[in-house]
Amino acid sequence: MKGYTVPLSPRGTANLAPTPPWHYAGTVVGVEFFAEPSAAAAALPEGLTPDPDSAGRGVAMFVDWQYSATDLEYLDPARSQYREFLVTLDARYNDTPVAWCPYIYVDNDSAMARGWVQGFPKKLGTVHQTRAYSVGGPGTPVLGPGGQFGATASAAGQRIAEARITLQQPVPDPAVLMNRPVVNLRHFPRLAAGLHDKPAVHELVMSVLDNTAISDAWVGTADLAFLPARGEELADLSIQRVGRGFHFDLAYTVTDLKTLADQSS
Amino acid sequence: MKGYTVPLSPRGTANLAPTPPWHYAGTVVGVEFFAEPSAAAAALPEGLTPDPDSAGRGVAMFVDWQYSATDLEYLDPARSQYREFLVTLDARYNDTPVAWCPYIYVDNDSAMARGWVQGFPKKLGTVHQTRAYSVGGPGTPVLGPGGQFGATASAAGQRIAEARITLQQPVPDPAVLMNRPVVNLRHFPRLAAGLHDKPAVHELVMSVLDNTAISDAWVGTADLAFLPARGEELADLSIQRVGRGFHFDLAYTVTDLKTLADQSS
Amino acid sequence: MKGYTVPLSPRGTANLAPTPPWHYAGTVVGVEFFAEPSAAAAALPEGLTPDPDSAGRGVAMFVDWQYSATDLEYLDPARSQYREFLVTLDARYNDTPVAWCPYIYVDNDSAMARGWVQGFPKKLGTVHQTRAYSVGGPGTPVLGPGGQFGATASAAGQRIAEARITLQQPVPDPAVLMNRPVVNLRHFPRLAAGLHDKPAVHELVMSVLDNTAISDAWVGTADLAFLPARGEELADLSIQRVGRGFHFDLAYTVTDLKTLADQSS
Amino acid sequence: MKGYTVPLSPRGTANLAPTPPWHYAGTVVGVEFFAEPSAAAAALPEGLTPDPDSAGRGVAMFVDWQYSATDLEYLDPARSQYREFLVTLDARYNDTPVAWCPYIYVDNDSAMARGWVQGFPKKLGTVHQTRAYSVGGPGTPVLGPGGQFGATASAAGQRIAEARITLQQPVPDPAVLMNRPVVNLRHFPRLAAGLHDKPAVHELVMSVLDNTAISDAWVGTADLAFLPARGEELADLSIQRVGRGFHFDLAYTVTDLKTLADQSS
Repeated sequence: MKGYTVPLSPRGTANLAPTPPWHYAGTVVGVEFFAEPSAAAAALPEGLTPDPDSAGRGVAMFVDWQYSATDLEYLDPARSQYREFLVTLDARYNDTPVAWCPYIYVDNDSAMARGWVQGFPKKLGTVHQTRAYSVGGPGTPVLGPGGQFGATASAAGQRIAEARITLQQPVPDPAVLMNRPVVNLRHFPRLAAGLHDKPAVHELVMSVLDNTAISDAWVGTADLAFLPARGEELADLSIQRVGRGFHFDLAYTVTDLKTLADQSS
Repeated sequence: MKGYTVPLSPRGTANLAPTPPWHYAGTVVGVEFFAEPSAAAAALPEGLTPDPDSAGRGVAMFVDWQYSATDLEYLDPARSQYREFLVTLDARYNDTPVAWCPYIYVDNDSAMARGWVQGFPKKLGTVHQTRAYSVGGPGTPVLGPGGQFGATASAAGQRIAEARITLQQPVPDPAVLMNRPVVNLRHFPRLAAGLHDKPAVHELVMSVLDNTAISDAWVGTADLAFLPARGEELADLSIQRVGRGFHFDLAYTVTDLKTLADQSS
Repeated sequence: MKGYTVPLSPRGTANLAPTPPWHYAGTVVGVEFFAEPSAAAAALPEGLTPDPDSAGRGVAMFVDWQYSATDLEYLDPARSQYREFLVTLDARYNDTPVAWCPYIYVDNDSAMARGWVQGFPKKLGTVHQTRAYSVGGPGTPVLGPGGQFGATASAAGQRIAEARITLQQPVPDPAVLMNRPVVNLRHFPRLAAGLHDKPAVHELVMSVLDNTAISDAWVGTADLAFLPARGEELADLSIQRVGRGFHFDLAYTVTDLKTLADQSS
Repeated sequence: MKGYTVPLSPRGTANLAPTPPWHYAGTVVGVEFFAEPSAAAAALPEGLTPDPDSAGRGVAMFVDWQYSATDLEYLDPARSQYREFLVTLDARYNDTPVAWCPYIYVDNDSAMARGWVQGFPKKLGTVHQTRAYSVGGPGTPVLGPGGQFGATASAAGQRIAEARITLQQPVPDPAVLMNRPVVNLRHFPRLAAGLHDKPAVHELVMSVLDNTAISDAWVGTADLAFLPARGEELADLSIQRVGRGFHFDLAYTVTDLKTLADQSS
């Protein structure tokens, strides 16, 4: 029985995700927001605390991703492309500034499986972002000053987030866009009677990204709304103020993570 | 942070699946098949052996499910209904006849999350079965002698299974339809470098179903094909012969499972 | 080149819908509502007037359909099953009480094509309704007194309608459920410059249903909401009051329609 | 009642497509192929003949499109983006070399409606193509020599086309990529009994594209397969030989068409 995630199988090609490395390239529409600080604090897991320097600050990102492992998986785009919407909240792990991801949605099962293994709490959703085409014309915004981009996310047929950005200028130092490591919670429950509250895996982890690259990074103005929806708590974050909007391409490779605290039972 | 599966959240309503009990009702189109015995044996996990009394025998089931926990979840059908295609293979756990599920597909994220917790290796797929309507007429088969039902399953835009059944007579003893407990493999990998082959959870388990009920059970003739597809190994089972076809409604509740062997690292 | 709808093709099997008859069987969750009368009147086409006996009255229906033509199409459920949400408004054609359908959504291209040919202004949507299973248990409502059913519809990732009904008693005379013929507007625009406002087809038609049958008809209490959404005008109907809820199975055959007024250019 | 396509409505914002102009920008993965000439000829409509200079030649195109009318529709990408797979066949209209589109698939209802109005025989499908990201790395091909791109199309859960291209060099004269006007058949049937074979609209038309622009055009080697599927006739074209592969961005505007022959009844 071969494979990394389920299903394990005789040839090991049926599994949702193979053994890392997992390589990514994507286009990001991002919006900085400021949630009601107590709502943001309530969404942090044990082990993280609000960042006193940026209480309530978070980032919403809509991403058109492409994934590949070691076998040119990007040549099968029906499986390797996906769209993602996620929110991160500024937090501290001890004294380290980190970003915590409370909610994340994708439209692809392999991405969902890889996410769970990383500790991203992925659900299914539908996500769209305006795309800039090099050919120009009235069917596309420019990737430059004045270019406007919309982005939306839905879950179970309910709109949960809407964003719009207008580009103004290049980002002078793109590294600032990814300057907080993401902290996740790997969590896998037990089903045996009496152990439903004793997860088999419950482990605070810090993501490790290799070969991170950013290109074509632009910053501008932004609008963002989180909309109430049955079975979702995103809108509870209660956006108080919206900051800047971003547009950039992003690439990195995942092969590792770092355990911060293991509370598995 | 409340909830059973990810995401854990302040109110505990964003999670993919709440703490059991999980109640199910569904309509099943099932087909008995006989795979190439060595191909079936190759798809068994460590701890199970082929059943010498039924080498290569399996069952393919297409199910229109409805799920509810303790809060009348079936009133939100956009989340609580789903369609499933699964295959089981006859096997032995020591001397006990069991059914092993190598491949299973659903069209719903909550079902996928619950399945992973149970040890079902669920991927996303699209599944359809002909439905019998009480009103009759040329738009529906009869749920009775001569009634014909088709069923199909696809993954990543590729057809992987097609079935057709023609009903002949009621099943005299419906309990025989569910007479083998399902054995699953709970499996959740590690991502830390060096530990990719040391899963955090790797546990052979036997499913526990409460209050199992079957109604309207019919048996008849059947056709079944497993079709080759990129990234799938279902067709490797190499069907040699197709047995009977079944149509029945099924209900049960899940709150527990039994660990057979824990090989978690 | 053979076929009825596009695409016409050498064998005539690629077309979205073959030549009628088109047979249907479905399960309906229906809710009677009373819109703001002027809003309902504004949604009527030329040739229809509000019904003075039931100003603003309408019916919202969520339907799980199965379709077949003359070749047992229901055996290919991936194509022949679909879900539909539609609204009808009481109106008069001259002195005849009719039902006008301003908005309708389906999840299937063949249904969309057939609908356009009938004059139903179909768009794509996702539609769900709670299902009653004969097997019983906590995963399903009963199809009888006290049984509760939810239903939802979404378009472009936005929830546009939500309903809930609780059954009370059988409908004594089910024919009343389908007592108004549906009037539609067949409309197919021209694209040639200067003729964008001169549709090639613009024809008020009355639907003709053969062999209409209703079974298992129940009536009870209901809730219904139409929700605002970008690119939709359903919520403009402004529900003032909700009437009864219905649950029934419905079958009929379509082979004809009757032209009331042809304003094609 | 306002609007261009159905549904017509009080505000005119619910319609599937507004009055042109319709602006497009897209990325194309294209493959030239040579079908069995008699199969290609059989797929031509009355009024077109095979092109004696290129018997059986056709082009398969997978396109990631973005659409806008006059209201920045591209800011609502959930509605304005779509993916398309189409095939064209070389043909002659009298002495004019043209391209005829027998089969085309999209994943969006507005695109389907616009297509029908143009005479494109659109059905629903799922379409994917590998994407090149400027940021580079192992998750993306380069848009340049050696860059490899895959593309797939499916209908009703069945894979119908698979392509792969490897880029070699820029296209010296990109205009050659769009040098044949597309001829379509606007076709809208009647449903009245006795008139099923007398379409209300049956009109051979030549598409008119304004402001056509091409950028980043690359040519290279290609593989292409059309796969048999229930309810589809694409594979009947019987590819004999595959030619070159292309990758380019394309933009144009649609506001008009030219009628070649009107056989409406």
